[in-house]
Amino acid sequence: MTKKSDYLKLPVEPFLVEPELTANQILDRMERISFQGRNLGTAHKVWQRMLGDDLLIFLGIAGALSAGGLRMVIAHLITRRYVDCVVSTGANLYHDLHETRGQRHFIGSARTDDRRLQTHHIDRVYDTLVDEDEFIKNDIWIAQFVSTLESRQYSSREFLYRLGKHLWDETGQDGILTAAFRSKVPIFCPAIADSSIGMGISQARMADATKGHVDVIGDIAESANLVIRRPRTASIVLGGGTPKNFINQASVQADFYHPGISGHQYALQIVTDVPHFGGASGSTLDEAQSWGKLAADANHVSVHADVTLALPLLVSGLASSARSALETRRPPTFKLSQQEMIVDGIPLPVSGYDVTR
Amino acid sequence: MTKKSDYLKLPVEPFLVEPELTANQILDRMERISFQGRNLGTAHKVWQRMLGDDLLIFLGIAGALSAGGLRMVIAHLITRRYVDCVVSTGANLYHDLHETRGQRHFIGSARTDDRRLQTHHIDRVYDTLVDEDEFIKNDIWIAQFVSTLESRQYSSREFLYRLGKHLWDETGQDGILTAAFRSKVPIFCPAIADSSIGMGISQARMADATKGHVDVIGDIAESANLVIRRPRTASIVLGGGTPKNFINQASVQADFYHPGISGHQYALQIVTDVPHFGGASGSTLDEAQSWGKLAADANHVSVHADVTLALPLLVSGLASSARSALETRRPPTFKLSQQEMIVDGIPLPVSGYDVTR
Amino acid sequence: MTKKSDYLKLPVEPFLVEPELTANQILDRMERISFQGRNLGTAHKVWQRMLGDDLLIFLGIAGALSAGGLRMVIAHLITRRYVDCVVSTGANLYHDLHETRGQRHFIGSARTDDRRLQTHHIDRVYDTLVDEDEFIKNDIWIAQFVSTLESRQYSSREFLYRLGKHLWDETGQDGILTAAFRSKVPIFCPAIADSSIGMGISQARMADATKGHVDVIGDIAESANLVIRRPRTASIVLGGGTPKNFINQASVQADFYHPGISGHQYALQIVTDVPHFGGASGSTLDEAQSWGKLAADANHVSVHADVTLALPLLVSGLASSARSALETRRPPTFKLSQQEMIVDGIPLPVSGYDVTR
Amino acid sequence: MTKKSDYLKLPVEPFLVEPELTANQILDRMERISFQGRNLGTAHKVWQRMLGDDLLIFLGIAGALSAGGLRMVIAHLITRRYVDCVVSTGANLYHDLHETRGQRHFIGSARTDDRRLQTHHIDRVYDTLVDEDEFIKNDIWIAQFVSTLESRQYSSREFLYRLGKHLWDETGQDGILTAAFRSKVPIFCPAIADSSIGMGISQARMADATKGHVDVIGDIAESANLVIRRPRTASIVLGGGTPKNFINQASVQADFYHPGISGHQYALQIVTDVPHFGGASGSTLDEAQSWGKLAADANHVSVHADVTLALPLLVSGLASSARSALETRRPPTFKLSQQEMIVDGIPLPVSGYDVTR
Repeated sequence: MTKKSDYLKLPVEPFLVEPELTANQILDRMERISFQGRNLGTAHKVWQRMLGDDLLIFLGIAGALSAGGLRMVIAHLITRRYVDCVVSTGANLYHDLHETRGQRHFIGSARTDDRRLQTHHIDRVYDTLVDEDEFIKNDIWIAQFVSTLESRQYSSREFLYRLGKHLWDETGQDGILTAAFRSKVPIFCPAIADSSIGMGISQARMADATKGHVDVIGDIAESANLVIRRPRTASIVLGGGTPKNFINQASVQADFYHPGISGHQYALQIVTDVPHFGGASGSTLDEAQSWGKLAADANHVSVHADVTLALPLLVSGLASSARSALETRRPPTFKLSQQEMIVDGIPLPVSGYDVTR
Repeated sequence: MTKKSDYLKLPVEPFLVEPELTANQILDRMERISFQGRNLGTAHKVWQRMLGDDLLIFLGIAGALSAGGLRMVIAHLITRRYVDCVVSTGANLYHDLHETRGQRHFIGSARTDDRRLQTHHIDRVYDTLVDEDEFIKNDIWIAQFVSTLESRQYSSREFLYRLGKHLWDETGQDGILTAAFRSKVPIFCPAIADSSIGMGISQARMADATKGHVDVIGDIAESANLVIRRPRTASIVLGGGTPKNFINQASVQADFYHPGISGHQYALQIVTDVPHFGGASGSTLDEAQSWGKLAADANHVSVHADVTLALPLLVSGLASSARSALETRRPPTFKLSQQEMIVDGIPLPVSGYDVTR
Repeated sequence: MTKKSDYLKLPVEPFLVEPELTANQILDRMERISFQGRNLGTAHKVWQRMLGDDLLIFLGIAGALSAGGLRMVIAHLITRRYVDCVVSTGANLYHDLHETRGQRHFIGSARTDDRRLQTHHIDRVYDTLVDEDEFIKNDIWIAQFVSTLESRQYSSREFLYRLGKHLWDETGQDGILTAAFRSKVPIFCPAIADSSIGMGISQARMADATKGHVDVIGDIAESANLVIRRPRTASIVLGGGTPKNFINQASVQADFYHPGISGHQYALQIVTDVPHFGGASGSTLDEAQSWGKLAADANHVSVHADVTLALPLLVSGLASSARSALETRRPPTFKLSQQEMIVDGIPLPVSGYDVTR
Repeated sequence: MTKKSDYLKLPVEPFLVEPELTANQILDRMERISFQGRNLGTAHKVWQRMLGDDLLIFLGIAGALSAGGLRMVIAHLITRRYVDCVVSTGANLYHDLHETRGQRHFIGSARTDDRRLQTHHIDRVYDTLVDEDEFIKNDIWIAQFVSTLESRQYSSREFLYRLGKHLWDETGQDGILTAAFRSKVPIFCPAIADSSIGMGISQARMADATKGHVDVIGDIAESANLVIRRPRTASIVLGGGTPKNFINQASVQADFYHPGISGHQYALQIVTDVPHFGGASGSTLDEAQSWGKLAADANHVSVHADVTLALPLLVSGLASSARSALETRRPPTFKLSQQEMIVDGIPLPVSGYDVTR
């Protein structure tokens, strides 16, 4: 039987302000306050714990994070191997490519005359602006690259690896795609057809019908095979969307072929959407437990915040606090340059599920 | 120069309650109040206007609308041709198939022990529950169906038409997929890889590597070709997500090959997401104008509301108010049973864009 | 031990659209779908049940409901005694008074040049506009009325009764304040100092320092005394804010003097705010149970929706479905014209708590 | 005529992660990204600018900030004179008093059995718990203090000053009320009747009807008189609610007696509420300009975020970046121990407006 004192053990510690506090110190103090501040402090601890455990860590990114200025934060997470596998919307990769190619997003305002922007060929993403004519050139650049690929299907993972390589060869610039290429971190984009990258690919198809075939169904099996190989997993989701479910689906699908794979051991999400309208983006991590997407005993935390506000602080904190964990971490290794992904030295099936484990 | 009286012309009319008000009467009165009530009343008028104009009307559905009990509302919109082309998330089509196959979603509670649900193989979507074992059987059913298809690529549109036919042949039951099959209304699902339908397809691939190839890049061209053929378009979006952008992308892509296609003439969205975090789901329709996704002079309205609350009232209203417009409407006609879609009697290119128009 | 079948008993019934559906029929069908649609359908049932039970029903109104066009809906609820006691923000009463005095709110747009509006003396409330010069005259009108009152303290409840009477005498027009006056339904406004009504009162004080004294501490005791007299209570809250807590506080305070008063037996809230930021407006009704604001076995439902969208449908439904319950209902009776409120024929203490019960 | 290049001048600078970044450095980098991250970075700059200008700075606090662990952050803002006048909800002051008296809030969970908490006399605020029996003792403690005051009306400002003094005399502990007392910073609580402080006051009235009279109408004049004396003002609002409007109302009311007082020169709000439901809490600062609450040329920024997440970072940054501005700042001085407030050595009228200026 619970007693009153069982509930009232750990007091809230009022946040104490001091000059020159570092991100790390701020997050440590936030862990002991309430509401979303507490959740962000807890997220800091949960991510640290992930890095000290033997896990395959998925990162999902949705929302305009690249346009929003977080592209190099994501690249940092990839390069330093805070994460092992990225699932992204197309837009985040496209906006990344835009900047890696030397073009920019610009500071604007959410209160503006959009019809005038249309006249000027300027596209708006809330308070951020971009030159549409440059976007059209990006599409053509993608189409040209696609034309150089062999006439066969590519999983989005293989395609994005090759796109990252091409981008690195041409620009030598850092970004999400080039960091993933150089660090051999796989990126999946299951909804690639809903993006300007997809549009560029389709334009290559126009010129040559044998080009521009992306095998998104292959992505399903490949992502599940990762979990089959490395069944201890973690899910970090920034913003919801298709990446959130795709990462969870990999666990569920892995369990279908290997009953007993129990769902992610850790989960962390930073979302602005809310649960009570029933959509997947805002769904709670408790709900994910009913589905077995998350282990029943998973360590999990949700932060209800804009990613542009929460992530810079969170990753700045980890850059100090997780340093030693990152150094001793032995992440999974990938070889990504072929149709079959090679994980820890052993190839995954090209098509279909790994039932040999 | 504007004068004060220019702003203060049309008074808010306080909503008057009476017994036995119909949906139609309620919506008419809501149009003259404020805030989201006004927006829903305006949405009613905008949709009526769409139906009286000569348009191709897209409908995007995201969020758990089928699980949420709106499946027959969507089927109604398809059958009566309030809309001409559907873009959906995979989940909405999967949950629809689940019910069309005679299985149910159940009324539960959002406050529950999700770990116990996991033990019972019950999946939760906010306050709604479903039997996970039935879901696993659905996946297998889908895989079996996929195994019967020819060993070639299918656009999601062609695949879903065939799935709808198979479902109708087997069940004879109404639903979204079967309504679209019977009414010859195309459905696209560009993010099919992020869904249980995709999982079922991938399981067919496991048995036979030549099966289960979905050509989502083909969807991009096909959807744009619809706009090229029928450049006067409208966008109705329920819930945001990939459907919202995919419908807009069709306009932008059409304009690339046929400069002068100016974006949708009408747009209506019912969303719960907000603009200020920069994501596409919550983005305003004004923002869409900067991109040319929407015409500069488009008639548009956003309703910030849960679709389960707003749509039943809205469509109940239209069922009366739009009756004569629906009768006289001459919507585009489609033939969907082949690899190339036939629009108004003329085939679209299978791959690539229609540049012959 | 729970079994799977215990959870999966009551299926979601897909909403079926038909022409000429009434509000009542729509709400009945919504009760069997999911998410906020279900909650609104449930709210309809819960309110019906309240009316058939022997209760004192509080109504809290916050947010710009009067400016938003819901003034006559609230008046309808008061006149027909769907509710017995109103707690309001000052703004809702002020905007009501504005219209009762023959002035209007106007339909505008949320995207407008606010600096130009300032030049024109036009005030904006999201998409609704009002003439600021008329507001200034209202303030003066209020000040003049206050000057005619005796030089003593008035509880906000007594003050608003007198204001409603004066308004009725002068205009003969319907509205919230005049309906409450005519129907002898008390209105409290504990945050009256944060409103234009408060500003008008303070202007009367400027002319005569003995005028314009509002005893909001007296409101605390008087509202709790209502609960002491009529301990079976219900709380209906539209929009959160000070009314939400004030209604709950009455229960808590009543329990302090009469231990065993257990909190509201029913609660219904329509809110847009969310729980996870810790504010009272968005707090769940479960949370209210921890405080004893709500009975442990209370019948309660929250609808996450804009009130301008949800309330017209809800009250239109009740106008039919609750008719017989309203006819047979025996609500508490009030006499409000004096310093002490008379409830069911027996006066409440002017100051302090009723410990004689 | 605007040109494309006029819009595309200032590029988004991707946030660069480094170890040991301080709050100040993080905020500087956030100012050049997008969305709410940019807004928080901008808020940092705007607050710095306020401190370097000659202003009276209002701070509004709503939402459970004290329970949420931000009590010492607010105290820091008061003590170091980042702000000059506080407007608060009652709850924030009550929870502050609770902790200053040596009692605590506790870390709990938002997913808990609230009925069991009720049995244990534990009150929940989202994920934070408190001992209800201690709360009852606080109420009695407040009532006892009120009994010691003279039998006359007190503005909430005078009352809270005396309450802070009493608390300091008894505990010698830091907190919001004691910091305000010691730093001679006025606190207003216009909605005091909607709080446990109000409940305690009303209990004193029960024992002696001449006690416990709070003159909230007096607060309206006094707050406006502050603006009349010091017409260059800034508004910092955390969380919306009654404080947000009360601070704005002071400007409007001041302008009524001294036409030409043009509204706040600076405004900064951190809110989670949104504009499109029409409530004051979520209203934009642009909207406030239509009312003249804000000057037409005001420097203003809104951050859409939970205050527990945004404020610790923001104030930690200011603790370094604003140090020199704070040292050279010459804030208004107050004497608060009497019925009339003395500002910069000159008394304000006790009742009514200062028309002598």
